[in-house]
Amino acid sequence: MTTLEFAERRALVTPDRLRHFFGARRLAVVGASETSSWGRNLMRNLDAAGGLKDLTFVHPQYSELFGRSTIPSMRDLDEPADLAFLMVGPSRVEPLLEDAAAAAVRNAVVLAAGYGETGDEGRARQQRLAELARELDITVMGPNTIGYVNSSLGIAPWAVASERPPMRGPVSAVFESGSMARAAYEFAQAHGVGCSLWASVGNSAILTSLDILEYLLEDEGTRSIALFLETVREPERLLALGRRALELDKAVVAFKAGRSEAGKRSAMAHTGAVATDDAVVDAAFGQAGIVRAASIEELVSTAGLLGYQKVRPKGARMGVVTSSGGGCNIIADLATVNGLELPAWEPSVVTALAEQLPTFASTLNPLDTTGFGHARARPRATKAEDDLMEIAVQDGGIDFMFTMMTPLPSARPEDPTFIESRLRILGQIVRDSPVPVVMASNTCLDVADYPRGLLEGAELFLLPGAELGLASVGNMVRWIRLRDRVLAVEPPARPPVVEGADEPVGAWAEDEARALLDRHGASMVPAVLVQDAAEAARVAADTDGPVAMKVCSRAITHKSDVGGVVLNVQGEAEARSAFERIRTAATRHAPEADVRGVLVAPMRDAAGVELLVGVTRDPTFGAVLAVGLGGIWVEVLKDVSLRVLPVGAETVKEMLTGLQAAALLQGARGVDPVDLDALAATIVAISNAALSLGDRLETLEVNPLLATVSGAEGLDALVLTKGPR
Amino acid sequence: MTTLEFAERRALVTPDRLRHFFGARRLAVVGASETSSWGRNLMRNLDAAGGLKDLTFVHPQYSELFGRSTIPSMRDLDEPADLAFLMVGPSRVEPLLEDAAAAAVRNAVVLAAGYGETGDEGRARQQRLAELARELDITVMGPNTIGYVNSSLGIAPWAVASERPPMRGPVSAVFESGSMARAAYEFAQAHGVGCSLWASVGNSAILTSLDILEYLLEDEGTRSIALFLETVREPERLLALGRRALELDKAVVAFKAGRSEAGKRSAMAHTGAVATDDAVVDAAFGQAGIVRAASIEELVSTAGLLGYQKVRPKGARMGVVTSSGGGCNIIADLATVNGLELPAWEPSVVTALAEQLPTFASTLNPLDTTGFGHARARPRATKAEDDLMEIAVQDGGIDFMFTMMTPLPSARPEDPTFIESRLRILGQIVRDSPVPVVMASNTCLDVADYPRGLLEGAELFLLPGAELGLASVGNMVRWIRLRDRVLAVEPPARPPVVEGADEPVGAWAEDEARALLDRHGASMVPAVLVQDAAEAARVAADTDGPVAMKVCSRAITHKSDVGGVVLNVQGEAEARSAFERIRTAATRHAPEADVRGVLVAPMRDAAGVELLVGVTRDPTFGAVLAVGLGGIWVEVLKDVSLRVLPVGAETVKEMLTGLQAAALLQGARGVDPVDLDALAATIVAISNAALSLGDRLETLEVNPLLATVSGAEGLDALVLTKGPR
Repeated sequence: MTTLEFAERRALVTPDRLRHFFGARRLAVVGASETSSWGRNLMRNLDAAGGLKDLTFVHPQYSELFGRSTIPSMRDLDEPADLAFLMVGPSRVEPLLEDAAAAAVRNAVVLAAGYGETGDEGRARQQRLAELARELDITVMGPNTIGYVNSSLGIAPWAVASERPPMRGPVSAVFESGSMARAAYEFAQAHGVGCSLWASVGNSAILTSLDILEYLLEDEGTRSIALFLETVREPERLLALGRRALELDKAVVAFKAGRSEAGKRSAMAHTGAVATDDAVVDAAFGQAGIVRAASIEELVSTAGLLGYQKVRPKGARMGVVTSSGGGCNIIADLATVNGLELPAWEPSVVTALAEQLPTFASTLNPLDTTGFGHARARPRATKAEDDLMEIAVQDGGIDFMFTMMTPLPSARPEDPTFIESRLRILGQIVRDSPVPVVMASNTCLDVADYPRGLLEGAELFLLPGAELGLASVGNMVRWIRLRDRVLAVEPPARPPVVEGADEPVGAWAEDEARALLDRHGASMVPAVLVQDAAEAARVAADTDGPVAMKVCSRAITHKSDVGGVVLNVQGEAEARSAFERIRTAATRHAPEADVRGVLVAPMRDAAGVELLVGVTRDPTFGAVLAVGLGGIWVEVLKDVSLRVLPVGAETVKEMLTGLQAAALLQGARGVDPVDLDALAATIVAISNAALSLGDRLETLEVNPLLATVSGAEGLDALVLTKGPR
Repeated sequence: MTTLEFAERRALVTPDRLRHFFGARRLAVVGASETSSWGRNLMRNLDAAGGLKDLTFVHPQYSELFGRSTIPSMRDLDEPADLAFLMVGPSRVEPLLEDAAAAAVRNAVVLAAGYGETGDEGRARQQRLAELARELDITVMGPNTIGYVNSSLGIAPWAVASERPPMRGPVSAVFESGSMARAAYEFAQAHGVGCSLWASVGNSAILTSLDILEYLLEDEGTRSIALFLETVREPERLLALGRRALELDKAVVAFKAGRSEAGKRSAMAHTGAVATDDAVVDAAFGQAGIVRAASIEELVSTAGLLGYQKVRPKGARMGVVTSSGGGCNIIADLATVNGLELPAWEPSVVTALAEQLPTFASTLNPLDTTGFGHARARPRATKAEDDLMEIAVQDGGIDFMFTMMTPLPSARPEDPTFIESRLRILGQIVRDSPVPVVMASNTCLDVADYPRGLLEGAELFLLPGAELGLASVGNMVRWIRLRDRVLAVEPPARPPVVEGADEPVGAWAEDEARALLDRHGASMVPAVLVQDAAEAARVAADTDGPVAMKVCSRAITHKSDVGGVVLNVQGEAEARSAFERIRTAATRHAPEADVRGVLVAPMRDAAGVELLVGVTRDPTFGAVLAVGLGGIWVEVLKDVSLRVLPVGAETVKEMLTGLQAAALLQGARGVDPVDLDALAATIVAISNAALSLGDRLETLEVNPLLATVSGAEGLDALVLTKGPR
């Protein structure tokens, strides 16, 4: 629902401007009343955060609010406020922006709903608001936002109830839904996930999620960023910011609904979003180095882990020590679900563990200490799992350690000696460990102030239960892989769009498609376009082995269906007869003038692997490449890899080797491996041919593309274009 | 790790005995000390629960414990305690059981670990414990248990820390892992899920999960039951108790780890469990009417919903009203994931909703009230979503209503008028609604005492967030379907085991397998076993159309691989030649004496659907039937339906129609539908043939079974048996 292009808003949303916006220590609250819950909640949050230097209430009717005297208009401000929080209905917003400008207030939060989310009238109102803000040089967050919390500075213009004062931490978050921003903030606060900035962008009349993401890349307090996206705008900018985040070692986690048809329909209704294929969203996030969370809770807990985990693991090999056999089984299942490995302990670690364990105990990974956890007197305030973990972290075959704790006491016990000492020792064990240690509670319970203090004191972060915890660990490992993959290749350049001359709108004839592909170096099986039976016979005679003959016409896209294809044509006589059959069939389905001839090409035998390569236009992300194998692989098993274009050859190879059917390319079933470099180069060339069409592209498909030990060759091609907008 | 058969323990674990066990108002705690956390936690929990009539500490050394004077031995009890809680190491348990028996104490909880979970010595100790308990007529829970909480009666011999006093409610739970019992109990307590009984069974020396399940079926306070199983013992009893629970309208939800290979390995290591295929566990739970939860949290929240939901919905059609557009999109996605439908509102409801909404608002399901929720003054303390929900529940096209709430205040606000009135009104709306109403919080937060009181007062139950909430709703709808399906058919009788005469151990020859199937009425393609080429020629000549010829020998199970099969044999000459080829091939692979001849059968054309029907022996559940379609369906798509045998024809039809490939049986792709009744009858006959082998069965497979418009006919059969144990 953005109403201005980035170029039009750019000056209002620079990181510098946003530093001022989110660092607003002098606040003007306009239109609040003591009877509205918005006003009361805002007051409570500002008080609890405690970082404001100045707070002025602006109200034309009330002379006093919340025990403070008010001024009737922002024009009466002694000095400019850093930010105006407008708590008024939509009809009063525009004059207030004028007042703000007159008072040199450069930033405003607009709470009011009734804009772009509500039909044509609201959209027009939002457009006016955006244009006015630009004219007046005011950075507007909203409309339809609940504000933000800047825990680093103790500034919380946040208009909904919150249970706890802002908690400082390494996570920042940007939400395109106010109510989900609130829900996630409460979940974060309840589970010890502290933040630097938590922002609800609302309808994004001026300020968008990506603007804030860009700002957060420079925010020192932020180490991980949670994004709740309803729609994706500016996809190229998302990819660029994603990459920049990786370079800065800041992890971005995103939640986006619309995985199902019902979810897509709902999102279209509520946001006017276009129906992007969710698999394309997945692909684009992957290319941007953004890991995707499946729920609000997983979003928060993954961002928490990526923010708090001081040293991130190198890989997926997990060591586990815990005091519950039942927990071990659950962890083992969840490891599999979340793509984590459980290597056996190294012999030296087995020996060291065995020295601490009863003779009957097994030393498996996951390691269960039940049954002997209480059996041994300990010289320090630890539990058996702590001591055993201290040993097991020495294992050179694991990338990180995972442990699960029984619930911590929610309040200080009468005698806190044991728990407090234990947490201190645990903190030291974790700091001394050669591999990162990840800790989870054994179920998803709020972390009260007392245990949170203990954890913070020991520099420990506790994940909310095995289920969410290991989903978060899986996301962290996926993020690490994405990061390494994205940073390993240079961002590919976008090849130039080439203006088409005499180019059809709609379906192209195959010879036209072949010419386009040829210009971009995408090899196709050689073919001759013939006009009569004699020529067909001549080409057939000149060809080693049988030929394939296909009608060539813009009007006939399903050539086989109309009898326009004859395969395995041997010799001149068959070629003549095939030509006549094709011509007869073609003229039944298309005016003679539209038939450009018959393509004659050598038959290729089956010594190779057939692929489908297609480029289609996604309404959000533009040209998207799809690659898969023929036969059941694409059609039945939906084994397709997608990427937003442009991509380089390395990325295409990653697509190919990531297919379920990858083994078939690498020489399974007694077939020689295909030439992967040549295949990738051909697919890049096909992609570039598609990109050269720019916005005219609807579809470009090479199907099949035959990959062999020595190269790759398209056997058929289809191009669909649309006219200029 | 049960050490006694059910028959040996039966007298100790009757529901009557367990009513006494779990209703123990007079408690003897033996061996506790003030310095052990076990003892302190137990004391705290007993105090908080408040329902004991008498508490005696038994200790040979301390004369006073927790401010009470002790007695040195249970033999000194004035009157028998209802239950002895033994808080001693394993070496002291047996003499204490003797003391208990001497004092006429009939029930004991054994906390000690170091038994069956810890190797051979521990297993022997557990066996001694079980036998002693039986001799002494003492019902033992444990060893390696943390006890139980009976909230209905306020009795909590529970030896681990708990944050809250026991909360009464309709859910009961039985856990085979102590630490998971504790984690789940805390999660339940934190999320307003009250219980009747929460039990940790430990190692089940005497008392098992199923014993407690049987007791809970008669417990008036229990409406739903959560089971955490590590292994499944007594599978037939599980099926019978599951069915009985459905008849009593008590819902059973189970969690069982071991979904992955890693999880299975871990479970085998920790419990000595056998490696049952997890798909068989799924099938068996379904047959028992038990719905399976994917995590501890989902187990608790599903049991909570099934316990608290007064009227259970009839189907999967869900209406949704909520105040968050972002929430609507999430709900729509989760509806799809969890198998729930979102029908459009009826015209009359659309009209009624439109009257309450601004003109621009859309009236979709899910219905989003954002943007106008605050716009309208209301005559009562409701939010827009409450009023709109009151309208939408009138929709005749939905089975239930789902709504999601913003977080409730954790403590009483200064002015509680609005929130308290709102909850009262919501309670009334829900009670008056013609369809069940399900409510969820919009994220997974603990429910503090104040909001829990409000919810209880309004008779409302709040699910912990959208993710867990809709997973629970999906489980509830699945449970309803299971219930209807299970109760619709009579439990099938188990056909008798038939002693085999002259029966091989290992692979059977095909004619032997055919004879077994024939005796049970499973139709096979007619075939003649011939001994020479002349006979083969005669049979071929007598047959309409071509014949198939196959070697018949116990020693050759892969007939095709050794050249033992010739298909499409036409006429006498070909039959002679085929016979010779088969004989030559066969004698290369098996001694001549082992070749019983060659089977000659008419070829069947492809006018039908080929199925695979197999019965294998699962180490836990015994004979399991697998049904799927040939081609890619079973081999690539793993489209197989499983059931634990015996099953009736109705169940087999349900298996067939539940396959992904079911459309092919029902007449897709221009093929006539197969005779489903005849097919099901044949599959039941095949199953009965397998069951007739009793414990001798390894595998019985009919592959392919050809289903046609008029019947079903096996084309090949394989039987593998094993010798007596």
